[in-house]
Amino acid sequence: MSKNMIIGQSGGPTAVINSSLAGAIEYAFSSDKIDTVYGMINGIQGLLEDNIIDLTKRFKGKPYDINRLRLTPAMFLGSCRYKLGDDEETFAEIIDVFNKYNIGYFLYIGGNDSMDTVDKLAKYTLSHNIDIKIVGVPKTIDNDLVGIDHSPGFGSAAKYIALAVKNVAYDTSIYSIKSVHIIEAMGRNAGWLTAASALARDGDSVAPHLIYLPEIPFSVDKFVDDVKNKLNEYNSVIVVVSEGIKDENGNYISARGDNVDKFGHVMLSGTGAYLKSVVEERIGCKVRALEPSVLQRSAGHTASMTDITEAYNLGVIAVKAALDGKTGVFSTLRRISDLPYTVDYYTEQVSVVANNEKLVPRSWINEQGNDVTQEMIDYLSPLVKGVPQVPYRDGLPDYIGLSHLDIKKQKYSD
Amino acid sequence: MSKNMIIGQSGGPTAVINSSLAGAIEYAFSSDKIDTVYGMINGIQGLLEDNIIDLTKRFKGKPYDINRLRLTPAMFLGSCRYKLGDDEETFAEIIDVFNKYNIGYFLYIGGNDSMDTVDKLAKYTLSHNIDIKIVGVPKTIDNDLVGIDHSPGFGSAAKYIALAVKNVAYDTSIYSIKSVHIIEAMGRNAGWLTAASALARDGDSVAPHLIYLPEIPFSVDKFVDDVKNKLNEYNSVIVVVSEGIKDENGNYISARGDNVDKFGHVMLSGTGAYLKSVVEERIGCKVRALEPSVLQRSAGHTASMTDITEAYNLGVIAVKAALDGKTGVFSTLRRISDLPYTVDYYTEQVSVVANNEKLVPRSWINEQGNDVTQEMIDYLSPLVKGVPQVPYRDGLPDYIGLSHLDIKKQKYSD
Repeated sequence: MSKNMIIGQSGGPTAVINSSLAGAIEYAFSSDKIDTVYGMINGIQGLLEDNIIDLTKRFKGKPYDINRLRLTPAMFLGSCRYKLGDDEETFAEIIDVFNKYNIGYFLYIGGNDSMDTVDKLAKYTLSHNIDIKIVGVPKTIDNDLVGIDHSPGFGSAAKYIALAVKNVAYDTSIYSIKSVHIIEAMGRNAGWLTAASALARDGDSVAPHLIYLPEIPFSVDKFVDDVKNKLNEYNSVIVVVSEGIKDENGNYISARGDNVDKFGHVMLSGTGAYLKSVVEERIGCKVRALEPSVLQRSAGHTASMTDITEAYNLGVIAVKAALDGKTGVFSTLRRISDLPYTVDYYTEQVSVVANNEKLVPRSWINEQGNDVTQEMIDYLSPLVKGVPQVPYRDGLPDYIGLSHLDIKKQKYSD
Repeated sequence: MSKNMIIGQSGGPTAVINSSLAGAIEYAFSSDKIDTVYGMINGIQGLLEDNIIDLTKRFKGKPYDINRLRLTPAMFLGSCRYKLGDDEETFAEIIDVFNKYNIGYFLYIGGNDSMDTVDKLAKYTLSHNIDIKIVGVPKTIDNDLVGIDHSPGFGSAAKYIALAVKNVAYDTSIYSIKSVHIIEAMGRNAGWLTAASALARDGDSVAPHLIYLPEIPFSVDKFVDDVKNKLNEYNSVIVVVSEGIKDENGNYISARGDNVDKFGHVMLSGTGAYLKSVVEERIGCKVRALEPSVLQRSAGHTASMTDITEAYNLGVIAVKAALDGKTGVFSTLRRISDLPYTVDYYTEQVSVVANNEKLVPRSWINEQGNDVTQEMIDYLSPLVKGVPQVPYRDGLPDYIGLSHLDIKKQKYSD
């Protein structure tokens, strides 16, 4: 007897979460164990509000739209920051919705918190003898998930940072005056994304000249010395810093940048903006701070093809696992070899990944704490490769529309 | 008797100035009137310092390298901000270098100030009966040059802004909470680049919701009302503002954003950052300010193919004009038709363009002053079209190297 599948997305966006969605639904459409594929709008929160769309109706037999979905950044199904608690009532509500839609398979694409949701739901259904398979699909640009060689979404964000640093390095190299550019990368407490800026280097261009990860306590004095040394060697010095760098006492450097506006309010200015003021103050050359912010996680048009493909495959693997009767697992990958780059896919207990954090090992950062080692480069290199054939219309990517996510609008229907 | 050609680049970088250089040298290589093509490193300043490289040696018979040059952002020859004065001594020095290198043709790729240099040099050589043809090639991301339908470099920057707005719009649409994103575009006193954000709209996505150009006096109260109205209609509101917007008294809005850091120093925070504080203060929803800064003029990997081709052709036309005996002119283009999009190329007296500024006409801005009209869209649409086949290596664009520009390094040689 066939059942229906429901799938959702949660947490912060990446360039390839929709690729996992495309992989999952395309595989589900091909299985005779699954009748209809539903999507929760805005994750678990949408499920609880019965805000559900029919993905079979929307996408089955529409390969061009599935391809656009695969190459569209952000989340077709919307997101939520809903943290599932332990109260019996909420679980009962969820099960009610499952029964209403005859759900046999529950797929959830997300990061750390989302995997915690998968874990809790799987434990609840198992302990209550409810036959629904609960499977997670990982994602995060921060690459801080354990139990996976690298997270889907990370490769595309890494590529964005490397591209931005390369373009800025070219832009700033044209003047014969001394200048410093400070680029602030995301990644929270993990330095992976900041480290990826090293991929901007090639046989000719040596930028970035300095890289500071949050895994090493940051010293402003050391930073000033480092920059001065590099300015002795180069006209234009490019520095990449993580948003999450902290001083020896564990205080965020960004917190020092608190400025007061004309109304007397404290304005958080970010790590890069603070270090810009330090360079102005203590070195005095031309300096600019750049904060790509959400651009680094949303640049679908320059995503990594490796990342897109892996995200798609992890969606497929998750549905396969559910159909094989697995629950409380997430789809993951391990690296078989760097060159040629090969991975294999499998599933792992979701309890491994939930509420853990993978940081950069000390040995992948240079001794002085201002650059990464060759081991890091070897790890990162394959992840940014490949240029996707994004369909363009009128000079811009022909992404699939997301206007159905606006709750002010009429409920989405085909 | 054949002569040599010298070419230089000047002013701020764009994604396609090297395409003009590629067009000029490739055409020059094909002419038997030109022996050797030289390049000035860092424009007129480099010429005066005899910092000159042999481009024939570097590029002739190397089509793959010329293609990389065509698709590399920034300036292969470096830039300067040197403003040519009226003193006889400097002119005499320049003519000395011309004689030393047997120069018959002088090409200068740049914006307003560079065209002024072309104008002055041409007048000087003409009045002194020195037989050197002086020709300009236009460029600027601001699109504020007169005497040309649109400036090379503008289309690629316009595309960057439209891409960024589209990606941010997707990124922010996934949450069911109210938010405002303010994106600050370059363009100095002209609103062309800000207007180009309108190209992010498609059948589904309506962002940007509000667009403010510097041609219309900016009212903070009106802005707050506009944003509130849009928030009644949409969850996520995207606003694009020009860096150059001014209030009714002609004062830059960015100047209001002066904040005081912990040392008591005034910190210029930019237009977007100031308006972010206004939204926080007077509306109170989630708000983010994004300033793509130099990323919008340096993104070679997502340049407009139309722009790359036109920049290349304007380089060719300039050399052709010089060989035809023209001097004191610049290469330009006029639009023949929007659909199909066609242009033709010609030359114009450089005095037309020097020290003038082309602003957005009032009739291309909507009545309320917070959006653009269909006329603007029709003008902009063809300029961002076409995706270049940028060569990639290891997942990143295989740009041609610029490390020879670092004066600390050994002087460039093949």
